[in-house]
Amino acid sequence: MTEQHLQAGPLPSGMQLHDDGRLRHLLTIEGLPRELLVEIMDTAESFVSVQAKTVKKVPLLRGKTIVNLFFEPSTRTRTTFELAAKRLSADVLNINIATSATTKGESLLDTLRNIEAMFCDMFIVRHADSGAAHFIARHVAPHVSVLNAGDGSHAHPTQAMLDMFTIRRHKGDFTRLKVAIVGDVLHSRVARSQIHALNILNTAEVRVIAPRTLLPADVEKLGVHVFNDMDEGLHDVDVVIMLRLQKERMQSALLPSAHEYFQLYGLTNERLKAAREDAIVMHPGPANRGVEIASDVADGSRSVILEQVSNGIAIRMAIMSMVTGAAQ
Amino acid sequence: MTEQHLQAGPLPSGMQLHDDGRLRHLLTIEGLPRELLVEIMDTAESFVSVQAKTVKKVPLLRGKTIVNLFFEPSTRTRTTFELAAKRLSADVLNINIATSATTKGESLLDTLRNIEAMFCDMFIVRHADSGAAHFIARHVAPHVSVLNAGDGSHAHPTQAMLDMFTIRRHKGDFTRLKVAIVGDVLHSRVARSQIHALNILNTAEVRVIAPRTLLPADVEKLGVHVFNDMDEGLHDVDVVIMLRLQKERMQSALLPSAHEYFQLYGLTNERLKAAREDAIVMHPGPANRGVEIASDVADGSRSVILEQVSNGIAIRMAIMSMVTGAAQ
Amino acid sequence: MTEQHLQAGPLPSGMQLHDDGRLRHLLTIEGLPRELLVEIMDTAESFVSVQAKTVKKVPLLRGKTIVNLFFEPSTRTRTTFELAAKRLSADVLNINIATSATTKGESLLDTLRNIEAMFCDMFIVRHADSGAAHFIARHVAPHVSVLNAGDGSHAHPTQAMLDMFTIRRHKGDFTRLKVAIVGDVLHSRVARSQIHALNILNTAEVRVIAPRTLLPADVEKLGVHVFNDMDEGLHDVDVVIMLRLQKERMQSALLPSAHEYFQLYGLTNERLKAAREDAIVMHPGPANRGVEIASDVADGSRSVILEQVSNGIAIRMAIMSMVTGAAQ
Repeated sequence: MTEQHLQAGPLPSGMQLHDDGRLRHLLTIEGLPRELLVEIMDTAESFVSVQAKTVKKVPLLRGKTIVNLFFEPSTRTRTTFELAAKRLSADVLNINIATSATTKGESLLDTLRNIEAMFCDMFIVRHADSGAAHFIARHVAPHVSVLNAGDGSHAHPTQAMLDMFTIRRHKGDFTRLKVAIVGDVLHSRVARSQIHALNILNTAEVRVIAPRTLLPADVEKLGVHVFNDMDEGLHDVDVVIMLRLQKERMQSALLPSAHEYFQLYGLTNERLKAAREDAIVMHPGPANRGVEIASDVADGSRSVILEQVSNGIAIRMAIMSMVTGAAQ
Repeated sequence: MTEQHLQAGPLPSGMQLHDDGRLRHLLTIEGLPRELLVEIMDTAESFVSVQAKTVKKVPLLRGKTIVNLFFEPSTRTRTTFELAAKRLSADVLNINIATSATTKGESLLDTLRNIEAMFCDMFIVRHADSGAAHFIARHVAPHVSVLNAGDGSHAHPTQAMLDMFTIRRHKGDFTRLKVAIVGDVLHSRVARSQIHALNILNTAEVRVIAPRTLLPADVEKLGVHVFNDMDEGLHDVDVVIMLRLQKERMQSALLPSAHEYFQLYGLTNERLKAAREDAIVMHPGPANRGVEIASDVADGSRSVILEQVSNGIAIRMAIMSMVTGAAQ
Repeated sequence: MTEQHLQAGPLPSGMQLHDDGRLRHLLTIEGLPRELLVEIMDTAESFVSVQAKTVKKVPLLRGKTIVNLFFEPSTRTRTTFELAAKRLSADVLNINIATSATTKGESLLDTLRNIEAMFCDMFIVRHADSGAAHFIARHVAPHVSVLNAGDGSHAHPTQAMLDMFTIRRHKGDFTRLKVAIVGDVLHSRVARSQIHALNILNTAEVRVIAPRTLLPADVEKLGVHVFNDMDEGLHDVDVVIMLRLQKERMQSALLPSAHEYFQLYGLTNERLKAAREDAIVMHPGPANRGVEIASDVADGSRSVILEQVSNGIAIRMAIMSMVTGAAQ
């Protein structure tokens, strides 16, 4: 699969919905209607209670086959989807493409057609290239749904939805919230998806805080206020979303040392005082303690990082049951 | 496990059957009675309908444990067996022997005895050496069945059975069919198993089409008509089965370049005109497009390649339920 | 995770039990009450019959999630836990830490917190460092149980319990038994756990037989009689437990050659004559045939090696259902 393949043709966000507006694929948050985001969160709410039960399992997807199609390894992400699928009673297949079919020279499309022909119902796609999930969604059979589990620096919609769900459970109404996203926005698929989701949900103010080198050129067009200074940016916010700093960025001279980065953009309790007293702190994990976030903040009373993980299972159960038409 | 081990003793095809004629192991097609092949296909027919249902699952093998014992990696094959087992509600264990027990110097036989002692019911065996599945079947406990998922260049009986099933669903009666197998017959376990199956089913004429370097010395003894010319060989056939060309063969000087091979033995729409108008085109996958088959043929209206994949699940469900005595 | 981390703080064996005495974690045999060991064996007895059934599955742990957290690979051990969990109808996640999260610099503790937050119920921990399972148990949430599946040269309690169970099924009352453990006691977590279990169960006499180089300095303090001579040590014993000889030890000059070792400490039928006529022979597997045990002994009528494997599933089902409060 070449970049050319992936970029070929437009990426109509409408392809994510059935004609009647129901969710078919989840590839990107961009372009989705507000009601759908709310429906996802409402559905997830019903699965939160399932997780608290002794028997954490419902038979909604019994007899369905869900395939984790991972073109780059990610145990964390794979695990959350696998757990969500199993708790819906689906059968799960883990296929690591890098180490299998492509070594036989089989093309991606042939692989897809093959797995489809085995009557699989859903592909969870993780890929290092932006647009990979779209490419796959554009070519799958009518009975197959595709969920994007992260494609390059493009999108990570389930992560964004679990973040929205976590914010809603703590803060309720988005229209009165100030939310700051801090860190490497430029390379972050998570940030991109979060910004779209926050704006669709009519968040009062979405801010990004980062050095210029870690911001996209036209970042304001995404509908955010830009801050290069941490203390200014955190002033009076209700939610602080920290991004993970990829170590590779530091080596590529986009960044000073980890120590210097922490001095300027690391989240400490001291710095957090600029935010509202009841502000919550989020991070998609795994956190680089002492680089983008101080350990006592990550483990502190305002941190909802582990709730994000828990909510991630409920959100994925919700999306899986919605695309298969099984949601209650 | 040495070659000596594998070759020790004869390979009585009778060891595949219980005394009352029911299937116990499936190691090779050779020597199986015609009625059994028909029974496998009839049983598979009942599972085709299961796959079309919303809940693609039957409880036939609930509480049974099926072990994928793969001595060489094959995601495609492993996946089809795993899916078939899960749709029968069996528990599945994937064990990759190359990367585990043998690194501790444990012998194959000790590994087998161990897995057996865990009350497993079925071994799906994939091995690079011919005879490996036979060797294992000869040593397993009475309660264990062995299915050969490909052993060296020897046999691949489930692939052959899904091919027969696909042919029957399209063409019905084998006794009136001309079938051509095209390509590297010499190294193909698939071809060997197909030839046995077609002859047992009394196919009117079985042809092989290949350059002399890719045919076994005594290939006629298998009961086939040999053609070295593609157009002659395809004349008037009802079924064209293309074989996958292993790239390694080309490097080993058995073959000219991929381009030249395609000129002589590649299946094109032009060449396909020699076959009957309603001829179907098959390929075990993954196809080398532009080497043994043109893309527009692989994706064309006569191709049943993806049906083969679908039928592969039903055939494996049938064989698994037959050897465990669970078939309806 | 540094050694310092692992060693920090005492390892109170009491942390394995709930306040009411029920089992919460199984980290080490040391310090457990006799009644609990008997309860584990009694519970396992009920699962032996499950394994003999056509449907080898009970719904005791339906809706529970069990995570195989393997920091070093061990297909054998992972397989037995996975099978036990599946036969209890639990969902199983296999996570190989070496190849996943740590490559992103995530700390062990963060990984644990994350998996916990996904509402997992049990961690099966395998680690090359002694104390790893204790470390994890000390930090997990109240709803999570930890089973030690082998930590360095420290403990392997489920292996010891399946050995006790196997002895009890053959010999009944421990208080009249002489048991000899033969081989590399120094490096064996299995031996350490066996010695504790045998003493807790009031075994009449526990012996270790090994060259001085393969015995801990203060081995007598463990409550064993020490023999350096095989024939003396085996005299009149009811049970012979052979240990696996790690090849690495031989290279590190702790040992003479494999051949010489076999001459001195290998178990042969000739040597076995010193033991009682009805003595049983055990080995945790995989055996080095011709190094610590002769093939005809391993496969002989007194060997219960494969029974140990079978009993291992029942014992693990018992422990899993006890820690989750699901045991019948």
